[in-house]
Amino acid sequence: MNLYDLESMDTCYALERLMLETIPLARAMGLRVLEFDDNRLALSAPLAANVNDKGCAFGGSLVSLMTLSCWGLTMLKLDEAGIKADVFVQDSEIRYLAPVWDELIAEAHLDSGQDWPGFIAQLKEKGKARVTLHAEVTALEGGGVACRFTGQFVAKRHGAKT
Amino acid sequence: MNLYDLESMDTCYALERLMLETIPLARAMGLRVLEFDDNRLALSAPLAANVNDKGCAFGGSLVSLMTLSCWGLTMLKLDEAGIKADVFVQDSEIRYLAPVWDELIAEAHLDSGQDWPGFIAQLKEKGKARVTLHAEVTALEGGGVACRFTGQFVAKRHGAKT
Repeated sequence: MNLYDLESMDTCYALERLMLETIPLARAMGLRVLEFDDNRLALSAPLAANVNDKGCAFGGSLVSLMTLSCWGLTMLKLDEAGIKADVFVQDSEIRYLAPVWDELIAEAHLDSGQDWPGFIAQLKEKGKARVTLHAEVTALEGGGVACRFTGQFVAKRHGAKT
Repeated sequence: MNLYDLESMDTCYALERLMLETIPLARAMGLRVLEFDDNRLALSAPLAANVNDKGCAFGGSLVSLMTLSCWGLTMLKLDEAGIKADVFVQDSEIRYLAPVWDELIAEAHLDSGQDWPGFIAQLKEKGKARVTLHAEVTALEGGGVACRFTGQFVAKRHGAKT
């Protein structure tokens, strides 16, 4: 699977394929890449595959989708910069504010105190860099934020310095 | 699905069935109830169904398993007390300390500042109660703690006071 040197729409498709082909749980969730606008990445998953005993979205599905939206956004920014790296989640905090009774949609963005050029520069220089991202799930019913996710991710560059 | 009035071994089986039958993602993960010793609940899931793009355990699978271990322990304590309630995760914090390259095993226990009788009493009195639990995943390779989870859970009692 190669994410590199692709146009934007193809990049979304390549990211979706990467996630579905390498992460069985993403496949079980029915994950889709909805949109990537350079600063935000939106993923979706149907409720039916992600329901809990109460009929609303399972917390594990919500956190998986939010984790993958942040991971995916980081992978796309590395792709843009032409860098091959592994990206790991290091820690995360989640607030579940309201139950989700419809399709799960998670949108990821960078923490306001961070910037992608700084992250990329550090990764190029040190071979390793950390970045903080946020993701939210919005409840279609009611329209408010249903879950908030903050996570710190670590990227480790493949091989030697480029 | 009825968790109530069952002996201990049957209770583990009933909990496993409840999770597998009502939470599709638990089924996709291949979740099993390993052990319940009155204060701790251990769940497992095979690596193959829960792998990520790097070949180790997917963060979403780890947090799902830890969330379910705490949720399941709370359900079993409510079962013991003869109380029917819905249990929701309200917030959680996760630290990923080391990659997991083998079977995922999560063990849940109550926070040291809390006690089950107090939680049960509050739930009986108010119809709603909060409880803090912890879960850990241990890496078989190396033997150390691979992930730490802390979560606050809310129980809402079904119907009127009993």
